[in-house]
Amino acid sequence: MRRLLAGLHPAETAHLLESLPPTERKICWPLINPDLRGDVLSYIGEEVRTDLMTEMDTADLINATEDLDTDDIADILQDLPDHIVHEVLRAMDSQHRRRVEAVLAFDEDSAGGLMNTDVITVRTDITLEVVLRYLRMLGELPENTDSLYVVDHDDHYLGTLRLSQVVSRSRSLLVSEAMSHQVDPIPANMSDRDVARRFEKHDLISAPVIDKDNHLLGRITIDDVVDVIRDEAEHSMLSMAGLGEDEDTFAPVRRSVNRRSVWLGVNLLTAFLASWVIGLFDTTIQKQVALAVLMPIVASMGGIAGSQTLTLVIRSMALGQINDKNQRWLLRKEFLVGASNGIIWAVAIAIVTVIWFNSLSLGVLIGTAIVINLIAAALAGVTIPLTLKRIGIDPALSGSVLLTTVTDVIGFTAFLGFASMFIV
Amino acid sequence: MRRLLAGLHPAETAHLLESLPPTERKICWPLINPDLRGDVLSYIGEEVRTDLMTEMDTADLINATEDLDTDDIADILQDLPDHIVHEVLRAMDSQHRRRVEAVLAFDEDSAGGLMNTDVITVRTDITLEVVLRYLRMLGELPENTDSLYVVDHDDHYLGTLRLSQVVSRSRSLLVSEAMSHQVDPIPANMSDRDVARRFEKHDLISAPVIDKDNHLLGRITIDDVVDVIRDEAEHSMLSMAGLGEDEDTFAPVRRSVNRRSVWLGVNLLTAFLASWVIGLFDTTIQKQVALAVLMPIVASMGGIAGSQTLTLVIRSMALGQINDKNQRWLLRKEFLVGASNGIIWAVAIAIVTVIWFNSLSLGVLIGTAIVINLIAAALAGVTIPLTLKRIGIDPALSGSVLLTTVTDVIGFTAFLGFASMFIV
Repeated sequence: MRRLLAGLHPAETAHLLESLPPTERKICWPLINPDLRGDVLSYIGEEVRTDLMTEMDTADLINATEDLDTDDIADILQDLPDHIVHEVLRAMDSQHRRRVEAVLAFDEDSAGGLMNTDVITVRTDITLEVVLRYLRMLGELPENTDSLYVVDHDDHYLGTLRLSQVVSRSRSLLVSEAMSHQVDPIPANMSDRDVARRFEKHDLISAPVIDKDNHLLGRITIDDVVDVIRDEAEHSMLSMAGLGEDEDTFAPVRRSVNRRSVWLGVNLLTAFLASWVIGLFDTTIQKQVALAVLMPIVASMGGIAGSQTLTLVIRSMALGQINDKNQRWLLRKEFLVGASNGIIWAVAIAIVTVIWFNSLSLGVLIGTAIVINLIAAALAGVTIPLTLKRIGIDPALSGSVLLTTVTDVIGFTAFLGFASMFIV
Repeated sequence: MRRLLAGLHPAETAHLLESLPPTERKICWPLINPDLRGDVLSYIGEEVRTDLMTEMDTADLINATEDLDTDDIADILQDLPDHIVHEVLRAMDSQHRRRVEAVLAFDEDSAGGLMNTDVITVRTDITLEVVLRYLRMLGELPENTDSLYVVDHDDHYLGTLRLSQVVSRSRSLLVSEAMSHQVDPIPANMSDRDVARRFEKHDLISAPVIDKDNHLLGRITIDDVVDVIRDEAEHSMLSMAGLGEDEDTFAPVRRSVNRRSVWLGVNLLTAFLASWVIGLFDTTIQKQVALAVLMPIVASMGGIAGSQTLTLVIRSMALGQINDKNQRWLLRKEFLVGASNGIIWAVAIAIVTVIWFNSLSLGVLIGTAIVINLIAAALAGVTIPLTLKRIGIDPALSGSVLLTTVTDVIGFTAFLGFASMFIV
């Protein structure tokens, strides 16, 4: 087993650990080469990582984090208690410590928290020949270095000098002539999602990070951004089921029970609300039991149609596609889609109902309720996430609960209410 | 407006177009500088892109695709009818055409379809000094070039020479001494998702693509992979609502109605199945109308619990975390989570029911049904996606329909069935 593990890339070891149930995970972890543990940790999702780190003592942690990139170290340290962070930092040499502290000073979810501080800087007034000599003197360049950054005496960011320019342009050219301004520097307090969006939009590989006075602080490379992009894209799906972004599929039973039961409890409230609405019409149902048989159809069609609209709107909001101008257009569109699909399926359901229960009025009743509920679902699917966002609540997390409440209540009220008025 | 558009980066123009309703989109498109249209198209999602391209004549298309990277051209051409592709290809110079044709020969969703063919190759037996002279002679390097590829006389791939090595190592070193084998070349027929996973795992920026005889065909850079990662991560969420991966939020009403109504129809079948189950117990409901009031709670709690399990399992499957060994563990875990949450909420719901309807037996009944349904939901949440995958059906698309069917049928049967046996 130990031999098998030794042959794996740290990323593969991380993947293996994430796919193991907790007991096996704990057996496997000590078998991993201590020098590689830091690397492995940097590839593991937050939840599993925290579990593994609680098993390590401080000496292990110091050993494991020794050879990592500053952003990876900062990322790992952020999950630990302060006194351990302090000890790990104390064990580093002062240059290294200063770098890690610089990254730790920023929020984990900001450009500063994503960045690496191991940049190579050059001045404007030297030639590419001198740059080449300088690089050769440095020897090994930091991993994934594709650009050097141009700064002045006070470390103000001036421009980017790509390695592809250094090797392809004339050696007598000055840095100031060969550098580019194509990539805007990223402010350290920009959120990681905005950073990801900028990388995606402009097909960036790396970008410089600056403070508010335009001092160069570090660089972000795309391999760090890829994780943000995946997390962001998965966030909506997991939130809509009441799950966390970093949820460990192989978490211990007790932890999963605690987390998920909260979500079930929230949903139970909406289920009771729906029951209460039905309860208002219990005498109607007693007289015409077919209503009880058919009512789940009304609620379920509304729920499905609403969640289609909701999913699309939440995704478009995450991609930044929705603005004040197109909101009204979208609301009108979804209204028309809801009404059209409502009419199409109302007719189909009405026909089945008439045949099944041999009652024309029951068919007209359920058809009407379906049209009303699908329109309500479409409107709720647009307005709920927009409103939640405006008041600062994550639409992916609470949107689906609210939507189901709306479609259940409106569906049952329309169906049973009309029944009590016109049929029974 | 035209001036505003001229000031935008093509990626921003693309984003703007994607955020516009269809009519405005069609008004806006002709205002965009024809030379930039190709660039803009390469940033737009497939659905919107196809719409825009149907408005362009062949001359426009030739003009727009002229200056693009080969992979972007291939990507765009793949959406067009064959005779137009043929004409666009004929307008290119022969070298360019050969490159585009090389990419077009591969499936859009494979490494070959993602790759760029503009690689720079060098031989093993020259020094870095000669490499530098060669690069300087070439002038401008292809965008995002961070590595050169080392090949033999027959274009067999031998290794990668990073630019960071070229600039930092001694000029008298041979290419064979400075090149690295760290990155495994990617076979052209590897699926784009496997390519994405490999880039993510190994934090790659670029990688060479080879054919089955180890000939170098091109390179893949991470900016092309980022789109695959986002699509893959969003795929599950959109599929679970019956939506397509590239769904345009601002698609015309008619198109949205057609697409979504299919999904509603599929779900209607499961809703009718649930109704049929309820119909089996209509006399029971007539005698005890509280059953009709409470039955949505049983179904809804099962649906929520099941979709939590389903979402986690689908995501873990997409990440390749689930294998034969941990399946049984996962099934056992979800069984325990379902049973625990079932018991917790069964007690809560039973208490509310006893108080509400002043009936102990109704409380016991609904509690029992909840436990049964939550266990069934957990087991279905694990086994449905695994089974679907085994028989080659996308679990994200059909999983949630099947799951709801299971939880509705088992929930209603348990609740109403026990009621008919013991209470009424």
